[in-house]
Amino acid sequence: MEKIRIGIYGFGNLGKGVLEAIKQNPDMELVAIFTRRNPEDVASQLKEKVTVVSTNSVQEYKGKIDVMIACGGSATDLPEQTPMLAKMFNVVDSFDTHAKIPEHYAKVNEEAQRGETIGVISCGWDPGMFSLNRLYANSILPKGNTYTFWGKGVSQGHSDAIRRIEGVKDARQYTIPIEEAVNRVRNGENPNLTTREKHLRECFVVLEEGADEVKIEAEIKNMPNYFADYDTTVHFISEEHLLREHSGLPHGGSVLHSGVTGVGNKEVIEYKLNLASNPEFTGAILVAVARAAYRMNKNGESGARTMFSIAPQLMSPLSEEELIKRLL
Amino acid sequence: MEKIRIGIYGFGNLGKGVLEAIKQNPDMELVAIFTRRNPEDVASQLKEKVTVVSTNSVQEYKGKIDVMIACGGSATDLPEQTPMLAKMFNVVDSFDTHAKIPEHYAKVNEEAQRGETIGVISCGWDPGMFSLNRLYANSILPKGNTYTFWGKGVSQGHSDAIRRIEGVKDARQYTIPIEEAVNRVRNGENPNLTTREKHLRECFVVLEEGADEVKIEAEIKNMPNYFADYDTTVHFISEEHLLREHSGLPHGGSVLHSGVTGVGNKEVIEYKLNLASNPEFTGAILVAVARAAYRMNKNGESGARTMFSIAPQLMSPLSEEELIKRLL
Repeated sequence: MEKIRIGIYGFGNLGKGVLEAIKQNPDMELVAIFTRRNPEDVASQLKEKVTVVSTNSVQEYKGKIDVMIACGGSATDLPEQTPMLAKMFNVVDSFDTHAKIPEHYAKVNEEAQRGETIGVISCGWDPGMFSLNRLYANSILPKGNTYTFWGKGVSQGHSDAIRRIEGVKDARQYTIPIEEAVNRVRNGENPNLTTREKHLRECFVVLEEGADEVKIEAEIKNMPNYFADYDTTVHFISEEHLLREHSGLPHGGSVLHSGVTGVGNKEVIEYKLNLASNPEFTGAILVAVARAAYRMNKNGESGARTMFSIAPQLMSPLSEEELIKRLL
Repeated sequence: MEKIRIGIYGFGNLGKGVLEAIKQNPDMELVAIFTRRNPEDVASQLKEKVTVVSTNSVQEYKGKIDVMIACGGSATDLPEQTPMLAKMFNVVDSFDTHAKIPEHYAKVNEEAQRGETIGVISCGWDPGMFSLNRLYANSILPKGNTYTFWGKGVSQGHSDAIRRIEGVKDARQYTIPIEEAVNRVRNGENPNLTTREKHLRECFVVLEEGADEVKIEAEIKNMPNYFADYDTTVHFISEEHLLREHSGLPHGGSVLHSGVTGVGNKEVIEYKLNLASNPEFTGAILVAVARAAYRMNKNGESGARTMFSIAPQLMSPLSEEELIKRLL
């Protein structure tokens, strides 16, 4: 079997998730991991024998990698990296800065068309599988409302926001959907829900020695955008406790669409994820999308894509015939 | 706006569901309903002013209908009708006799390629949206198990099977998923479940005068394929009671996929439907797929398709740009 040759560009939590996912897909092989750190340091931390090279040498891999999976952050990495990589490789990213997606799409599209590659942006579970479920549900039930709930899970952005406060040594923030709100939607009530009615925020904070609990708790709870619009609870715990109980990156959530057909029949669609590892699940999606990118490009296509424009069967290793027999 | 011109071929419960769905989609118009019954009788039962004609006159509508939605039954109607319609029109059906799908696909493909039309088969929620969720979940989490639960809802096939028993005047059968089994899957236990452990069957039966309750209850419970492998309860009720309490066609169910990433992180995906009207929801899906069929054919494509090979955005009335802004 000819294998799809994959590169991982950036090796944080998401890159590690992609590495794990590649191991589960026998039609794929990892060619190299690209890092800004010292490649030898990264390689020495891995159980697997994997080629780890500097991001500076990426051009040498043109023609040797079928799909590059861009695993950088959305704030500053991907806006530069995905278009740059699309010049040379089919590329898949998880860009999630919502307001900037149209601009990112345009840039990737330009480079991918010029490079005759495919660039699939904003893959993962949200944006990604949750987006697909919003699309399918709205297409089927145009008279309806869509609700997205996140959690229970660790929000890296909110955890980082707490860590930036003076006197905080470490922190973990859980986003928690309010079950009563979820149930009202499930029952087809079509409620109008405020931000505060949809999610709670729970924070576990380790203080530097001598830091002021009362002041820091108030600072967290009043932080605009991040916490002020939510009911937030703050727990101060020891560093040992944090590492022992809160070192995982679970997440999940649900997309609910509540619509009406005919003379008032309620139809409720729910898509729900319960994830022990957010980065590993996201990595698994990126790898399945990489398969689709490879096939679209083989088929002569180029340009930017989202999961909206990918025929689902392109993501599966099975043939159309097998899929019809086994999963239809 | 140029509207997509739709025909409804067959006007039972599903055809009525399609009619309701078309009303919710302003980019579509209904050209005609085709019936084997007396068209005037059918027309007189409708509140809407709709053209109702005999199935015999279908050839006159070639060029006047963009997509024909085939609403016949899978047992004897669709195997003949969908290939016949594909000669003249883009066509969408809900063929669900699983073992015969490959054969049906081949026949529709042949006629659709010759007629330069698109024929999308086996659309609805199962096969259909449930199949898509099985495909996405297996593509993302190849190390995992997929479970499909149906209900709570009315099974027409099982209700019909009871009605065929001598002495039975009318009957309604509910398929009910066993919540304990669903929860074990949700918790990532990956249980091996027998047929009996997954679903219950509950029957509401109206007897002919003088029929033998004990004999009929035993006959139902021991019926091979339909009931013998399940825990089945039978309630004998009056005809009035049946019509008052059991005249709806609710259904639903869930597709659960429980997989593992990395060194043992459990990831659970659940897609759940809670439907007040099975035929109206199915009709709504067929209408969204009709939009995709129209677009694929406009784009120069022909042949058989399933929902597996349809890019999701083709089902939405929104442009790719709008979808990216609003739903990604």
